[in-house]
Amino acid sequence: MPALRQALAAALLAYAPAAMAQDQPPRELPARSLPVPGTVSPQMQKIIGMPLRTGWNTPPTTPEEWRKLAEAGAAATRQGLPGLRDRLKVDVEPGEMGGVKVFRVTPKEIKPENRNRLLIHIHGGCYVLNPGEAGLPEAILMAGLGGYPVVSIDYRMPPDAYFPAALDDVVAVWKAALRERDAKTMAVFGSSAGGALTLEMVLKAKAEGLPLPAAIAPGTPMSDATGAGDSFRTNALVDNVLVAVDGFCHAATVFYANGHDLADPLISPVYGDVRGFPPTILTSGTRDLLLSNTVRMHRALRNAGVEASLQVFEAQAHAYYNRDDTAPETREVFGEIAGFFDKHLAR
Amino acid sequence: MPALRQALAAALLAYAPAAMAQDQPPRELPARSLPVPGTVSPQMQKIIGMPLRTGWNTPPTTPEEWRKLAEAGAAATRQGLPGLRDRLKVDVEPGEMGGVKVFRVTPKEIKPENRNRLLIHIHGGCYVLNPGEAGLPEAILMAGLGGYPVVSIDYRMPPDAYFPAALDDVVAVWKAALRERDAKTMAVFGSSAGGALTLEMVLKAKAEGLPLPAAIAPGTPMSDATGAGDSFRTNALVDNVLVAVDGFCHAATVFYANGHDLADPLISPVYGDVRGFPPTILTSGTRDLLLSNTVRMHRALRNAGVEASLQVFEAQAHAYYNRDDTAPETREVFGEIAGFFDKHLAR
Repeated sequence: MPALRQALAAALLAYAPAAMAQDQPPRELPARSLPVPGTVSPQMQKIIGMPLRTGWNTPPTTPEEWRKLAEAGAAATRQGLPGLRDRLKVDVEPGEMGGVKVFRVTPKEIKPENRNRLLIHIHGGCYVLNPGEAGLPEAILMAGLGGYPVVSIDYRMPPDAYFPAALDDVVAVWKAALRERDAKTMAVFGSSAGGALTLEMVLKAKAEGLPLPAAIAPGTPMSDATGAGDSFRTNALVDNVLVAVDGFCHAATVFYANGHDLADPLISPVYGDVRGFPPTILTSGTRDLLLSNTVRMHRALRNAGVEASLQVFEAQAHAYYNRDDTAPETREVFGEIAGFFDKHLAR
Repeated sequence: MPALRQALAAALLAYAPAAMAQDQPPRELPARSLPVPGTVSPQMQKIIGMPLRTGWNTPPTTPEEWRKLAEAGAAATRQGLPGLRDRLKVDVEPGEMGGVKVFRVTPKEIKPENRNRLLIHIHGGCYVLNPGEAGLPEAILMAGLGGYPVVSIDYRMPPDAYFPAALDDVVAVWKAALRERDAKTMAVFGSSAGGALTLEMVLKAKAEGLPLPAAIAPGTPMSDATGAGDSFRTNALVDNVLVAVDGFCHAATVFYANGHDLADPLISPVYGDVRGFPPTILTSGTRDLLLSNTVRMHRALRNAGVEASLQVFEAQAHAYYNRDDTAPETREVFGEIAGFFDKHLAR
């Protein structure tokens, strides 16, 4: 596969020398065939066996191409929503908080201990994808599997608005929520860019002296947008979602950053001052291109004295746990996060 | 590198079809060059940059060859011990417990809260390597960095004694320790085969109705000796210590098992009934060939309702944290484990 090989070589060359140790020899790895493991559920085997994401190395190059790509993906995701809502028994209502569009995602049966609690969800999609209802699958999974009321933020994205618009919207929703209830009854969660925005929101809230959420759950967060992190190389082409370090997701992040420094902690929170952060549960998988982003964030939190719990799932690439509500691993992921929140949120 | 490629192909073909999903297409990965990351300490960069372990795919084939290999490795390890003991300020005395050879590894300054506590250490080495004092580096690191008194078990190994001799020795030491002190003041830890033996010992103690330790810390445990686990493939040749699924460590385990079923939970504890296990902290790295062994064990414990904490370190292959006491990551690993024990052990 010369095309793949060229693409990978390009990916490995594209990034900052600072991310690598210049004085050590690289390891030469031969070509190989990677089987689908039998150590995960049939549902996960099916996702692992899928080919690399279409167009992973040919990202859009104009704002309008990005909008079209986001809309095409969103149309596909929307088709699955009615079934997902039905199976997980949740209602979805559009609304607004702090002048920002949100969706209220509410289980038909809220667990008694969660009646006075609220989870705030920040969807993923490399800061550019999953507009509108397309951002809801993870919120529906959490509401349905965890029995919590959830507000999912439909934050502004490029090409309509660039950094720091998404973060501003998230902080505006947080401020609105604080006017309604005690921070101790709330948690914030999200995956990928949503995981990064979760961390960025806490950095920003800390800087502004706002009360912090009682707990957060960044899933496979884009905590380092500079290209540093060993799993960007070890899991290149092993992860069939993000695929490689300079694939579409990096291009989308650059598009969002709009010239802003990618090493700014408000884009790469692994470089932020996380002292005083609330209890945090992080989730990743052994095939995740962002495994290093996740474990490095975990270490940064632990080294700052923060209570931080890590879960890594067998053979999962980027955010597989949002893909199939019938997979037992999906129920494990959300069960762990729901339990972590239950432990830390006031009633 | 045709030799490497052939060896890897052999490794991938050597294992049980049960470990793989037969109906899903494998992923074809091109050859690639894997740089040493800049996201770890210079000490860790040096270890990552080392070539693949000499003789990883040419294990001994006779008992005497195994003995010679173990002795050669032990001689090299012993050379580093005086310096390590000095730097970490610990004393080492040979002794015996329950008829089994042990070493008492005692920090010159035991932390006040640890005066009435005891850690029991089970060294690694694929059930065959690190006889005598060569099993001590990890015990010295824990005693010195954690400030705990440690007893390290010099359990019998092939070709002198085969499965379940090692486990019998560990259980004999545990029974002797129980005659001296309350189980609530004790924890058990070890890496690789020592991590597996830690888990196996708890399974065995549970079956015999013995009191269990207050906490355990299996590091990168050989929890599945059957070849199942996705990181056996994804981290093949990425991990420069164990290197591949059917390398020397598998050969050593087969040698130890001596015809016994490798899927027996007393050799592959991931298949054991871990309900009622004590609080457990597991450690691995993103390049670890046993990353899946570690995270699958973590999931098995969590799914059994056990308090289980996972730490995964950036770019570390198998048990790097036992290699350089000056690396900040080494101090993080033992600091986390010491803190976990402090939280769970009675004084």
